[in-house]
Amino acid sequence: MNKRSIKQSFTVTFEYDVHFTADLFAAENPLLAQFFANKTAAATPKLLVVMDGGVVEYHRSLPEKIRAYVSETGCVELVDEVMVIPGGETAKNNVHVTDSIIDAVDRHGIDRHSYIMAIGGGAVLDAVGYAAAVAHRGIRHIRIPTTVLSQNDSGMGVKNGINFRGKKNFIGTFSPPVAVFNDSSFLRTLPHRQWLAGISEAIKVALIKDADFFEWISRHAELLHNRDAKAMEHLIYRCAELHLQHIAGSDPFEFGSSRPLDFGHWSAHKLEQLSGFEVLHGEAVAIGIALDSTYSSLAGYLPYSDSQRIVDVLQALGLPIFHSLLEIGDIGHPLLTGLEEFREHLGGRLTIMLLQAIGNGMEVHELDSALVLQAATALQQRVAAIHG
Amino acid sequence: MNKRSIKQSFTVTFEYDVHFTADLFAAENPLLAQFFANKTAAATPKLLVVMDGGVVEYHRSLPEKIRAYVSETGCVELVDEVMVIPGGETAKNNVHVTDSIIDAVDRHGIDRHSYIMAIGGGAVLDAVGYAAAVAHRGIRHIRIPTTVLSQNDSGMGVKNGINFRGKKNFIGTFSPPVAVFNDSSFLRTLPHRQWLAGISEAIKVALIKDADFFEWISRHAELLHNRDAKAMEHLIYRCAELHLQHIAGSDPFEFGSSRPLDFGHWSAHKLEQLSGFEVLHGEAVAIGIALDSTYSSLAGYLPYSDSQRIVDVLQALGLPIFHSLLEIGDIGHPLLTGLEEFREHLGGRLTIMLLQAIGNGMEVHELDSALVLQAATALQQRVAAIHG
Ligand SMILES: NC(=O)c1ccc[n+]([C@@H]2O[C@H](COP(=O)([O-])OP(=O)(O)OC[C@H]3O[C@@H](n4cnc5c(N)ncnc54)[C@H](O)[C@@H]3O)[C@@H](O)[C@H]2O)c1
Ligand SMILES: NC(=O)c1ccc[n+]([C@@H]2O[C@H](COP(=O)([O-])OP(=O)(O)OC[C@H]3O[C@@H](n4cnc5c(N)ncnc54)[C@H](O)[C@@H]3O)[C@@H](O)[C@H]2O)c1
Ligand SMILES: [Zn+2]
Ligand SMILES: [Zn+2]
Repeated sequence: MNKRSIKQSFTVTFEYDVHFTADLFAAENPLLAQFFANKTAAATPKLLVVMDGGVVEYHRSLPEKIRAYVSETGCVELVDEVMVIPGGETAKNNVHVTDSIIDAVDRHGIDRHSYIMAIGGGAVLDAVGYAAAVAHRGIRHIRIPTTVLSQNDSGMGVKNGINFRGKKNFIGTFSPPVAVFNDSSFLRTLPHRQWLAGISEAIKVALIKDADFFEWISRHAELLHNRDAKAMEHLIYRCAELHLQHIAGSDPFEFGSSRPLDFGHWSAHKLEQLSGFEVLHGEAVAIGIALDSTYSSLAGYLPYSDSQRIVDVLQALGLPIFHSLLEIGDIGHPLLTGLEEFREHLGGRLTIMLLQAIGNGMEVHELDSALVLQAATALQQRVAAIHG
Repeated sequence: MNKRSIKQSFTVTFEYDVHFTADLFAAENPLLAQFFANKTAAATPKLLVVMDGGVVEYHRSLPEKIRAYVSETGCVELVDEVMVIPGGETAKNNVHVTDSIIDAVDRHGIDRHSYIMAIGGGAVLDAVGYAAAVAHRGIRHIRIPTTVLSQNDSGMGVKNGINFRGKKNFIGTFSPPVAVFNDSSFLRTLPHRQWLAGISEAIKVALIKDADFFEWISRHAELLHNRDAKAMEHLIYRCAELHLQHIAGSDPFEFGSSRPLDFGHWSAHKLEQLSGFEVLHGEAVAIGIALDSTYSSLAGYLPYSDSQRIVDVLQALGLPIFHSLLEIGDIGHPLLTGLEEFREHLGGRLTIMLLQAIGNGMEVHELDSALVLQAATALQQRVAAIHG
């Protein structure tokens, strides 16, 4: 019995720029043309554009603007067909949407030296990113996020995914983009619930990493709520920056089980699912933040006044802090079930981010069920006191 | 127009051991149990085993042996169901094969802390590897290759893939395994054409990287042809070693367009396709090696005596050096078409590996069509002289 072994070990470097701009496809905006010009290539590369149907509805002239920009600058060879796919979860729920992108890759001779550009909300970016990641084992992928959530969170991250037989993000890969362009002009047409919901991720990252940023959000809560563009641009920039630093500095492909950026998320996943995704991700995260901050105080990690301030800021922004689906029902308490499901998901051992100060997260490996319920009850009563 | 940018950059480290053993699932072989013991985990991880139907036909007791090994050592929690999928390209041609694996992931609660083990030829490893790579954005994947080709080449590499609407490897990812176990006892049941075909990849890597290894192959051609197990074990070990070094030392995820390990492959891809994959990959590569070695001589890079020796060794092993599908036909010359297709595949600029000495490759960016045809004719005549 021959028993030799060879140890294999290598590193792969991933690099991409995240740009912040407005009117990316305006003739006078050189950003995109510069991006292509900086890539040395034997031949002008091809570009396939895939757009979010929900975005196109509000930005009817977008396909024309893109064609004009590309023909003006000659920076890339635009494939004839500009694809439009349904926006939101529909893009991720139907395998024929991703298949149609892979078909287009074939039809237009898109190869590993070509580019696929996705323009849309997080769902469209996830679906297109997935198709791009697996076609030819990976086609260069450019993201143009059009929602607050995708501009400050999912769009500059490294994950993509689609749903499989109704299971959320059951299929996907870790595949960084080659560039991200955050174009603030898209945000103007965003429904108000979407606008607000995206702010949760910024609050989350501020709470675990940057007390000054939380102060800034708290001071600008009213402006943010009232759709001030400048305030939102700053919020997105700082949130993106903290996110990118976090990804680069830790475990980008999540080989381990520590996921600090999931602060406020364990209960959010359960609530989204219970609501059949009626509750938006960011809304569920706002409630999760309220819950885990309150828990942090009840468990003695965080001063009570701090958890109160956090809940105040969430409410000042117009974000929810509780949902009736999280109340006890016939089949037990949904929060405790959610906690068990999360434990299983992590392979048997919980790792949960809590707060020891505003701007300073801490990981624990157990939550006290009684305190979780106490935190939920406190939030529920607070909401009842307002509405009642 | 706000024009800030953030540069993102990070590296990801991939590590895995490639083990060489026999009778991996024999009670007295501690290798696999040690692998799991070395992983610290909160709970005993789950293991889903997926086997190649063609292998099970010759190794009927394999599922039982695996169950016995696992229950004896208690190293892992084996999922009830041992899956058997069709061997060869069938595994890669039917999306319901990969879907059935993803379904099993769901059904058995396999998560990112669990393992999926694939036992089979390169095709089964590619299909299972793909399913494992995308389910939950990547489940830890163990490969147990059972053919010469997969033990010395594909099994320890970083790629997987399936076919899409009949297009070979159109979909896939770069996803390194967490461990590879090369078990020599599987090779005994391999059909003879498969046994021989796998040797081509060793000749290929020897020719571009290691003259001594080529000498060794040349001296052992008869033993290898006659299925000497010890000789084959050495061949596989050295070929795997050179492969692993190459992957670690260059561009593992093929972001660039240089692919030195594709020596002899540009024409092989065309021949496989023309034959409807009747010609095995390794057979096509043997012909491709003969062609590109002869070309290297005709172009003045390689001494004529060296290209003759290479062709001699291929023939001594019983590998083909030419195929009638590569002769000119009604729609032009298949080799010149193949060359153009390859150029397109590389995004417009050819990069082709040739030889400047035995053991020493060199890249060129253009091939002379007339010389390509002259090389093909020389091989064709050589075959005719033998058979005629
Ligand atoms: N990959 C990751 O790391 C990651 C992280 C968080 C969330 N996500 C995913 O992101 C998705 C949610 O993304 P989202 O919050 O951006 O929403 P979304 O993509 O679901 O879009 C919501 C709706 O807004 C429309 N829309 C998008 N941009 C618009 C605009 N500028 N004007 C008007 N309408 C517009 C869409 O067509 C859609 O109907 C979920 O599928 C979630 O799983 C992924
Ligand atoms: N991922 C990569 O980097 C990479 C590299 C090269 C080739 N490949 C792929 O590998 C595949 C070819 O793989 P292969 O040459 O290993 O053949 P294969 O997987 O196609 O298997 C050939 C046949 O042999 C049977 N078989 C396998 N092991 C056996 C054994 N021990 N005894 C008896 N029968 C056995 C199989 O059931 C099948 O019928 C192709 O699909 C090719 O695209 C992948
Ligand atoms: Zn989130
Ligand atoms: Zn090969």
